Amino acid sequence: TIEHLFKEIFKAAKELQEDDYRKTLLVSREQKPQDTIVSVEDVEIGGGNLQYIIGPCSVESEEQVDQVAQALKERDIPILRGGAFKPRTSPYDFQGLGFDGLKILKKVGDRYGLKVVSEIVNPNHIEEAADYLDVIQIGARNMQNFELLKEAGRSDKPIFLKRGLAATINEFMNAAEYIISQGNDQIVLCERGIRTYETATRNTLDITAVPILKKETHLPVFVDVTHSTGRRDLLLPAAKAAIAIGADGVMAEVHPDPATALSDAQQQMDLDTFHQFMNELQK
Amino acid sequence: TIEHLFKEIFKAAKELQEDDYRKTLLVSREQKPQDTIVSVEDVEIGGGNLQYIIGPCSVESEEQVDQVAQALKERDIPILRGGAFKPRTSPYDFQGLGFDGLKILKKVGDRYGLKVVSEIVNPNHIEEAADYLDVIQIGARNMQNFELLKEAGRSDKPIFLKRGLAATINEFMNAAEYIISQGNDQIVLCERGIRTYETATRNTLDITAVPILKKETHLPVFVDVTHSTGRRDLLLPAAKAAIAIGADGVMAEVHPDPATALSDAQQQMDLDTFHQFMNELQK
Amino acid sequence: TIEHLFKEIFKAAKELQEDDYRKTLLVSREQKPQDTIVSVEDVEIGGGNLQYIIGPCSVESEEQVDQVAQALKERDIPILRGGAFKPRTSPYDFQGLGFDGLKILKKVGDRYGLKVVSEIVNPNHIEEAADYLDVIQIGARNMQNFELLKEAGRSDKPIFLKRGLAATINEFMNAAEYIISQGNDQIVLCERGIRTYETATRNTLDITAVPILKKETHLPVFVDVTHSTGRRDLLLPAAKAAIAIGADGVMAEVHPDPATALSDAQQQMDLDTFHQFMNELQK
Amino acid sequence: TIEHLFKEIFKAAKELQEDDYRKTLLVSREQKPQDTIVSVEDVEIGGGNLQYIIGPCSVESEEQVDQVAQALKERDIPILRGGAFKPRTSPYDFQGLGFDGLKILKKVGDRYGLKVVSEIVNPNHIEEAADYLDVIQIGARNMQNFELLKEAGRSDKPIFLKRGLAATINEFMNAAEYIISQGNDQIVLCERGIRTYETATRNTLDITAVPILKKETHLPVFVDVTHSTGRRDLLLPAAKAAIAIGADGVMAEVHPDPATALSDAQQQMDLDTFHQFMNELQK
Repeated sequence: TIEHLFKEIFKAAKELQEDDYRKTLLVSREQKPQDTIVSVEDVEIGGGNLQYIIGPCSVESEEQVDQVAQALKERDIPILRGGAFKPRTSPYDFQGLGFDGLKILKKVGDRYGLKVVSEIVNPNHIEEAADYLDVIQIGARNMQNFELLKEAGRSDKPIFLKRGLAATINEFMNAAEYIISQGNDQIVLCERGIRTYETATRNTLDITAVPILKKETHLPVFVDVTHSTGRRDLLLPAAKAAIAIGADGVMAEVHPDPATALSDAQQQMDLDTFHQFMNELQK
Repeated sequence: TIEHLFKEIFKAAKELQEDDYRKTLLVSREQKPQDTIVSVEDVEIGGGNLQYIIGPCSVESEEQVDQVAQALKERDIPILRGGAFKPRTSPYDFQGLGFDGLKILKKVGDRYGLKVVSEIVNPNHIEEAADYLDVIQIGARNMQNFELLKEAGRSDKPIFLKRGLAATINEFMNAAEYIISQGNDQIVLCERGIRTYETATRNTLDITAVPILKKETHLPVFVDVTHSTGRRDLLLPAAKAAIAIGADGVMAEVHPDPATALSDAQQQMDLDTFHQFMNELQK
Repeated sequence: TIEHLFKEIFKAAKELQEDDYRKTLLVSREQKPQDTIVSVEDVEIGGGNLQYIIGPCSVESEEQVDQVAQALKERDIPILRGGAFKPRTSPYDFQGLGFDGLKILKKVGDRYGLKVVSEIVNPNHIEEAADYLDVIQIGARNMQNFELLKEAGRSDKPIFLKRGLAATINEFMNAAEYIISQGNDQIVLCERGIRTYETATRNTLDITAVPILKKETHLPVFVDVTHSTGRRDLLLPAAKAAIAIGADGVMAEVHPDPATALSDAQQQMDLDTFHQFMNELQK
Repeated sequence: TIEHLFKEIFKAAKELQEDDYRKTLLVSREQKPQDTIVSVEDVEIGGGNLQYIIGPCSVESEEQVDQVAQALKERDIPILRGGAFKPRTSPYDFQGLGFDGLKILKKVGDRYGLKVVSEIVNPNHIEEAADYLDVIQIGARNMQNFELLKEAGRSDKPIFLKRGLAATINEFMNAAEYIISQGNDQIVLCERGIRTYETATRNTLDITAVPILKKETHLPVFVDVTHSTGRRDLLLPAAKAAIAIGADGVMAEVHPDPATALSDAQQQMDLDTFHQFMNELQK
C-alpha cells in the first residue's frame, strides 16, 4: 500500500538524516572507529584497562590531601582528585581554596608521583591551571558553559567532562564536540547521575549511558559513583555495576575524616572504607 | 549552642520516626532480617542463586511459545514468561489472547517442565488464573491498582511485582506491603526502569534501586532489562550490571521472529541473540 | 538536492502518519470538531461556562459532608466531591468508608440538590456505584487500569478522568479513548500535576496541558488545583491560571477542619478560606 | 506520648532551621518585605505594572531587528530583546553575531527609544557589553555559571536571570543570591519551563513557580512563553496564564520571517501573529 511505502521512505530518510548528523561529529565512532586512549603522561585511560580517580571532594589542607594520596599510593592508583574551585548552590557555602588548592594538589601529587585532576570553572583560569594540573575537569553545572568548553579545547591537557545535572546523552556528546572541535581530542566522559523525581538517591545513576556513549563515541567513559548516588552505602554496588557494564574507570570521593569535611560530608568514604571498597573491586 | 542542640534532636527524632515507620512494614528487613526465598514449586528465587525469567512479550500462538520454551530448556532456564492480558496504551493495539493465552502457556510449560508466569490485570481473574500460572505478574501500570494487589495478597501463588512507570522506591515497597498485608509473602520485586527526560532509552534503568531494595526489604529483586532499556543492543550490558550489583535474577523478552511480533517488536531478542546473551552471561 | 527532497518527503509522511493516527481516535477533535458538553442531569460541563467541583478529600461523616455541601449551596456550586474508596500509598493509611461513604454523599447531595462525584477503583463497583453517584471519577493511579476504564465506558454515567501521576498527554488521551471506545462519550479530562524533580510543590501543574487537550480533543478539561500543587497557598493562583488558560472548570478540596482530616490535611481549604477563594475567582 | 512530643519538636526545629536559612538570603522577602522595582532607566519592571520583553531569538541583521523594533514601538512596548552570543547545543549551529550583534541592537534601540537586553555568556564580556545593553541576560544554561553570576553582581546594569533547564526553585533563588551578594539587587527572575518526561512541549512551564518566587523573594518575576512551550500555538494561552497568576511580565520571541530564522524557527511569532497576540492580551 501507499501508506506502507511512505512508512519505509520515512524510516529510510530518518536513518539517513541521523546518520549524516552523527558523521559530522568528531567525537562519533563513525568518524573514528577505534577507541581513543587518553594519555595522562604515562598513565592511560581507555583502551581496556580499568582506571580509578580518587580523592577528597574539596582540597582543605596539605595534610588532608597527603593522607588520601598515601592511600592511593598503597593501592597503586595513579590519579588523585581534589576540588579547589567549588561550584556550590549557595554563595555562602565553602567555595574552595582556589589556586592555593591547586598548589597543594600539585605538591602532594609530586610527592607521591600521582597525576592530579581538579575542576576549573572560569575560562580565564584554564591556562594558569595547566601549570598545576595533569587533567582539567569540567563539572556538571558547566557542561554547557560553552566558553569554558572552547577554552578547554584549546588546552593541551586532557579534559575530564562530567555530564550535566539533567543533560541528555545527545547534549553530552555535543558538549564534548565543543572541546574536540577546538583541537583537543583527549577527553574523558563521566556519567554522574541525572536528575529525576526519585529522592532515595541524590541523583539517578543512568548506568546504560555507559554502553551508549561507548557505542556512539570513541572516548573513554567513567562513572562517578559518589555524585550519582550521594550515599556511602551505594558506592561499592554502583562501582561493581559500572565495571560490569564496561566503564573505563570509576571516580569516587575519599576523605580522611568525612564528618568534618567542608563539602559532601554525607557521601565521602573514610580511608578504611576506601580500602574495603578497593579490596572488593580488586578481588 | 541551642541551634546545634536543636539540630541533634531534629536528626534523632527524624531517624526515630523513619525507623518506626520501616518497622511497621512487613516487607522490611527490620521485621525479618533473613532473605525471603520465593518457591515456585521446586524452583527457588532469591537466597543467592541467580535466576532468569524469559519469554515473548505476548503469547501469540502455541508454536511461537513452543520455540522459545525449547530454547529455555536447552539453557536450563526453568521459568517461562508470556503476556496474555496486555495493558496497551491504545485500545486499538493488540490486547493479548486472554485466558486462551494462559492455556497455551500452561500447555507448553507442562510439555517442557517449565514454570510459567504471566500478567493479570483484573482482580476477578486472579483466582481462575491460578489454574494456569505458577507465578502471577502485576505490571508497572497496575503497581498502584490496590484492588489487584489485595486480591494477589489473598492468592497462594507467588507474585512478581513490577515497579510503576514513575513510582518511587518507597511507593514500590508499599505496593508490596499491600500484598504481604493480606498474607502472601511470596513476592519478587522487579526494577524495570523509570520515566525520565532522557529519550535515548525507553526508560532509565534505576540500577541502584536493586541494592536499596535488597537492603530495605527481605524480598528477592529482579531487573527487567527489556522494558528498562527498550533497546536490543543494551540488554546484555544491562544484564551484566544487574548481576554485578546483586540482582537475584534477570527478566528478558525473547521471540522467535521479533520483526513480526504483535507487541514490542523493537526490543525482543530472537533465538540466536538469546543464546549469545546467555553465553555471555554464563561464561 | 536529494537530501532536501528526502526531508520534504519525510516531513509529509510524518504529518500524514500523525494525522491518520489522530483521526482514528474518537476523542480527537478531527473526529468531532465541536465541543462535547458533558451533562450531569441538568448541570453542564464544557461549552463555555466555568464549573467547579468542590468537596473534602475523604468522606468522613455525614456532618462533615453536610457542612461543605452547605457552603457549596451558598456559592451556587452544583457539584460536590468526596472520596469513599481511597487509593493510599500505604495499606495502613485510612482507606475510606467505601459504599457507606457513597451513601453519605448521596444523602447529603439529595438534601441540597447537589450532584455528587466520587472515585471508583474496582471494575466490579462501577455498576453499584451508579446508584449513588452522578459522576464516576477515575483517579490518577488508575489512569491506565484498562479494565476499570473499559467498565466505565460501559456505564451510562459521566466519567471524570484524572491524568496519571506521570502520564504523557498522549497516554491520557488514549486512556479516555478506552472509555469512549466502549460507547460512553461523557468524559471530563482533569489535569492534576505531573511528577518532576521539583519538590517545592507536590506535583508540577502542567498548565499548558489544558490548551493542548482542548485543541486535540473535543472533551471538557478541568484542573485539580489541590493535587497539582499540594499547597494551600497556591490554590488561588493556580485556579486563576487555569481559568485564564481556558479550563472548563476547577476542582479543589475543602474540609470543615483540615487539621483533623483523615487524608490530605496539608492541602485542603477550610470553609472561610474557601469563601475567600470563591470571592477572588468570582469577582 | 513521647512520640508525639518528638514530632512537635521535630516540626518546630525544622521550621526554625528553614526560617533561619531563608533569612540569610538577601533575595528573600523576609530580608526585605517590599517589592523590588527594577529600573531600566525610566522603564520600571515590578511593582504592579505588567511589562513585555519582545524580540527575535537571534540578532541576524539590522533590517531584521528594525522591523521588530517598529512593531514594538507601535504597541508601546519599551524593551527589545535579541540574542548575540547564542549558547547552542551543537558547536556547528549558528553561534550569533557577538559584539556586532550587540551593536546592531543598540543602534536600533536608540533609533526607536527602546531599552535593549541580550544574553552574555562570558564573565569577561560583562563590562564591555554594558556599553551596548540596558539589561544583561543570563541564560538557562548558565544559571549555575557562578563566575558569570558574580561578575554580573559587580555590574551596575539590571540582570535578567533565567531559571536553569532543570533547576529547582531553591537553586534558582540561590543563583540570584550570587548576584545580589556582590552588590547588584536589580534582578529580574524568569521562569522558562523545566525539563520533564513530557514531550508534547519543549519544556514544561512550571506556572506555580511564579507565585512561589513572588512569595519567597522580593524580585520581579517574568515568564518566557517561547522557551517554556516551544510551540507557537501555546504562546498566547501561556501568556494569559502567566498574567493571571501574577507574573510581572512576559518574554516572547518575534521574528519578521520565522521560517528563515537562524535559530528557533519553530517557535517565534511573525509580526502579524505578534499583533494578534498583543491584541488578545491588551483587550
